[in-house]
Amino acid sequence: MKDLTLTVTTGPLPASRRVWHAGERHPDIHVPMREIDLHPTAGEPPVTVYDSSGPYTDPEAEIAIDRGLPRLREAWIAARGDSETYGGRHVQSADNGFAEGARLVPEFPVHNAPRRATQGRAVTQMAYARAGIVTPEMEFVAIRENLGRKAQAEALTRDGESFGAAIPDVITPEFVRDEIARGRAIIPANINHPEAEPMAIGRNFLVKINANIGNSAVTSSMVEEVEKMVWATRWGADTVMDLSTGRNIHNIRDWILRNSPVPIGTVPLYQALEKVGGIAEDLTWEVFRDTLIEQAEQGVDYFTIHAGVRLHMIPMTVNRVTGIVSRGGSIMAKWCLHHHRESFLYEHFEEICEIARAYDVSFSLGDGLRPGSIADANDQAQFAELESLGELMQIAWACDCQVMIEGPGHVPMHKIKANMDKQLEVCGEAPFYTLGPLTTDIAPGYDHITSGIGAAMIGWFGTAMLCYVTPKEHLGLPDRDDVKVGVITYKIAAHAADMAKGHPAAQIRDDALSRARFEFRWEDQFNLSLDPETARSMHDETLPKEAHKVAHFCSMCGPKFCSMRISHDIRAEAQKEGMARMAEKFREGGELYVPLEDKA
Amino acid sequence: MKDLTLTVTTGPLPASRRVWHAGERHPDIHVPMREIDLHPTAGEPPVTVYDSSGPYTDPEAEIAIDRGLPRLREAWIAARGDSETYGGRHVQSADNGFAEGARLVPEFPVHNAPRRATQGRAVTQMAYARAGIVTPEMEFVAIRENLGRKAQAEALTRDGESFGAAIPDVITPEFVRDEIARGRAIIPANINHPEAEPMAIGRNFLVKINANIGNSAVTSSMVEEVEKMVWATRWGADTVMDLSTGRNIHNIRDWILRNSPVPIGTVPLYQALEKVGGIAEDLTWEVFRDTLIEQAEQGVDYFTIHAGVRLHMIPMTVNRVTGIVSRGGSIMAKWCLHHHRESFLYEHFEEICEIARAYDVSFSLGDGLRPGSIADANDQAQFAELESLGELMQIAWACDCQVMIEGPGHVPMHKIKANMDKQLEVCGEAPFYTLGPLTTDIAPGYDHITSGIGAAMIGWFGTAMLCYVTPKEHLGLPDRDDVKVGVITYKIAAHAADMAKGHPAAQIRDDALSRARFEFRWEDQFNLSLDPETARSMHDETLPKEAHKVAHFCSMCGPKFCSMRISHDIRAEAQKEGMARMAEKFREGGELYVPLEDKA
Repeated sequence: MKDLTLTVTTGPLPASRRVWHAGERHPDIHVPMREIDLHPTAGEPPVTVYDSSGPYTDPEAEIAIDRGLPRLREAWIAARGDSETYGGRHVQSADNGFAEGARLVPEFPVHNAPRRATQGRAVTQMAYARAGIVTPEMEFVAIRENLGRKAQAEALTRDGESFGAAIPDVITPEFVRDEIARGRAIIPANINHPEAEPMAIGRNFLVKINANIGNSAVTSSMVEEVEKMVWATRWGADTVMDLSTGRNIHNIRDWILRNSPVPIGTVPLYQALEKVGGIAEDLTWEVFRDTLIEQAEQGVDYFTIHAGVRLHMIPMTVNRVTGIVSRGGSIMAKWCLHHHRESFLYEHFEEICEIARAYDVSFSLGDGLRPGSIADANDQAQFAELESLGELMQIAWACDCQVMIEGPGHVPMHKIKANMDKQLEVCGEAPFYTLGPLTTDIAPGYDHITSGIGAAMIGWFGTAMLCYVTPKEHLGLPDRDDVKVGVITYKIAAHAADMAKGHPAAQIRDDALSRARFEFRWEDQFNLSLDPETARSMHDETLPKEAHKVAHFCSMCGPKFCSMRISHDIRAEAQKEGMARMAEKFREGGELYVPLEDKA
Repeated sequence: MKDLTLTVTTGPLPASRRVWHAGERHPDIHVPMREIDLHPTAGEPPVTVYDSSGPYTDPEAEIAIDRGLPRLREAWIAARGDSETYGGRHVQSADNGFAEGARLVPEFPVHNAPRRATQGRAVTQMAYARAGIVTPEMEFVAIRENLGRKAQAEALTRDGESFGAAIPDVITPEFVRDEIARGRAIIPANINHPEAEPMAIGRNFLVKINANIGNSAVTSSMVEEVEKMVWATRWGADTVMDLSTGRNIHNIRDWILRNSPVPIGTVPLYQALEKVGGIAEDLTWEVFRDTLIEQAEQGVDYFTIHAGVRLHMIPMTVNRVTGIVSRGGSIMAKWCLHHHRESFLYEHFEEICEIARAYDVSFSLGDGLRPGSIADANDQAQFAELESLGELMQIAWACDCQVMIEGPGHVPMHKIKANMDKQLEVCGEAPFYTLGPLTTDIAPGYDHITSGIGAAMIGWFGTAMLCYVTPKEHLGLPDRDDVKVGVITYKIAAHAADMAKGHPAAQIRDDALSRARFEFRWEDQFNLSLDPETARSMHDETLPKEAHKVAHFCSMCGPKFCSMRISHDIRAEAQKEGMARMAEKFREGGELYVPLEDKA
């Protein structure tokens, strides 16, 4: 421990403050948001934006990653009286890939006894929602989603195309409850991850993004992974998946969970495979089940489960250009072939649900047969598995478990909408969670962009969460810079989707930034952008002086050609003369002037 | 001159050769393409890709930018017998912004007398096409567009959604002629720019991209601009616009034109404004006309003309969030307001057409009132101007002039298609040429991505050429790295659009790359990608050794978790057993196995 520098990135974003909104039904909840202050000359109130960064951006918060974050939800969970702490599973050497001595990442220093449902109880948000209970988590989410809407409700025209989504003008706690109850949204919130700030994933909420982190056998360390998590949430990741393989998985995950303000997802199969030495066919239900308990006790908020890969579907993949590209899918396919039987995930799916409902672990039903190339998009294997996921979802729902459905992958633009339509058809409107999709295969090194295009589109069509793709996809593990570029790209896609869906408050930030642009408030342009640091540094490359921050031009066009400056002259002239009079005069102008038609 | 290092980037891309296909009707034409060799283990022929890079990537070519490129089309032009060389306009000090002495960029060393149509003749590709003549340029374009199609015609399924575009299985010279004749495509090819390799812009051809370069009053120099042009075409820019303002415009443009293998576009208004000291209201038809002649004689292939900005439309922009954001549009609006009359561009549009037809300068009818923010998208001003552009286009067509129509700008996803539909409706299917559009305003520093999303979509819907946006948009002038990122992003957008439209050969490269991926041919993956250097360097960050170039895994998942490797095992097992038998056995498997439904 002494050798580790336990520091992560902290401090507010430029001109930003973390503020809290208190609950009404539950006055003890305090929902964080970020307010971006504008320059006094703007004469505008601060712009409030969604804040996934947790206490790290709060200068008042004391951050120590060997103590972890405050246990925000602990009292809410305890107050429900339907769960209890217990001794918990004993950590084994295999949990950390048999790492020993100096190679063993130290345990997280603080131990909290795990909590699980008392016998037979369901402690899921879905169970509460179905029972008519509005939990603090639900009200938290309502306030969080609702930011800025009341103030803007009248100002904004809702002219989007929602493709059947029904986003209300204002989100009420009751609306959240209803969406959770019918399975159209989830709040991933393991009772053993009380540090996380509740968030919702669903078609009628803001489109969310997930960032993947995790070490592999080849690279990465513990502090690096915690920092990647903090770094990803700083730029806007709504959930983080820890996809670690190799050694030290258990201990690294503990450090991540205890410090994460967002839900953490995993693919338990990866750790189970490590426990059997990487031999897929040696996997057993017992090893897998034990891994689920291990991770549920640690507080993992959602599990990707590849139970939809059925034996009869495997031949459908053999003539594909890229076969099976999901790691979990390929592992299970290999197991199924070797044993010539359905997977233990499929056969034991109800037992998996029993575990999930005792901790409120949500499911992300994995698309083990997603297409890995344009050639394989929307094929028989992919859609057969999607139907299978819809069936499994019904089983999970019957157990009061929260579910989302994973989607592709690599899909050309004209085949994207069919994915969403099919998912809505066979998966009862459960949230769709897609990886991209990548719209072409020919740009390794730029797959954040090939996939950002597809992500924006499928987000518009109704996908609830977009799993980011970094520039390193297909080439290596993302570093810090890649994580940031991936997150920003996916924030763009999600935001573009919100706006196209007609989300009532999405355009507020665009309008504020565009007004800043028109009024040459450069500092406000930087501060309102998704990545203020990059915007500022690009501007400063050619115009570094402070005086240029108020200049009425930039280096793109120089002072003489600044269209915005000229527009101000035009506006001034119009105001001087009176708009109505001006238009009148133009209409009177004789044959040169054509009538002003109102076609807009 | 002695102080200048006149070097630009040359040399082939990795594993690539420049090859030529000879014409049939015109045996003296030789159409360049790039062949990418694959590893011998692939057992596949080279992949042929479109090549916009000119002689710079040919190791046999002698490059000297003070001599310029070979005058490829000179003989074809002369052979038509409808044009003649003449003394040409005298270059004036004002043409270079009165730069003198050391500040004056030297003239291009080789002088060629300009050529123009003999009295009253139209030397445009449209005029020839309408007269039933298939020019060498048209056959060149047919061969160029046609790459790989014949070989693949049977293999590929054309399952795209073309929204009314009609891309034939194979492009014939006669098809090109027909598309040009009806105005649905253009070949920008000034008779004074014989160095350029003919290319087509139209809805039934590959989607093209444009890269903007140019110095401003604040920054940049001559060699830098020539290098940017070479660099942009190296990565795939199909045309380049020189948007220089400030001093030395004339001389820098000469250097660019003499060395450019792609059509060069300009906004003549920028230079005209320099000539009147930057005072918009001092612009006159005479100065503008003189500038058109100057640039036509130099060989500019297309002019952006903002003649659609009409006096009665200006009041429509006054209540916009960002007013008028087109430089040309704002300059003309200011002129119109000051003089209280229609612009000289509008009033003299027929005379402008007379000039264009004497040199074959194509028009890019500028969208001076395009929206500069999400808030202003698809408003009355924008669509009123689009209708005006449709009217002007008819005048240009009557003069046998080639026309494309410029489009936005900033447009949220749900409003993009309306732009394309309206353009098709009012502009007679003339090629649409859009800037992005940007799908959100909140990501300065990443506007290549915000706009790449919109560009891919509008390209799919039918836009013929996409004007790139670099990461520096709104912040400063792009440098070399920005130019590359912008070009690659737009190649992605254009290619994704081609594929979604159902272009018969677009998927060839995707499939080849995906096969390489599945077979762990890392070198082939790099070489087939749009940016081999970046793909390779990202891979080498974690696995730098040569041995890793044949490794059957990468650092993303490590060896144990490689889904592709597992897929090979599955395929091997299937082949051993026989696919049919395997599927059979699964179906027989009893109650666990559900019937294999054929739903794909």
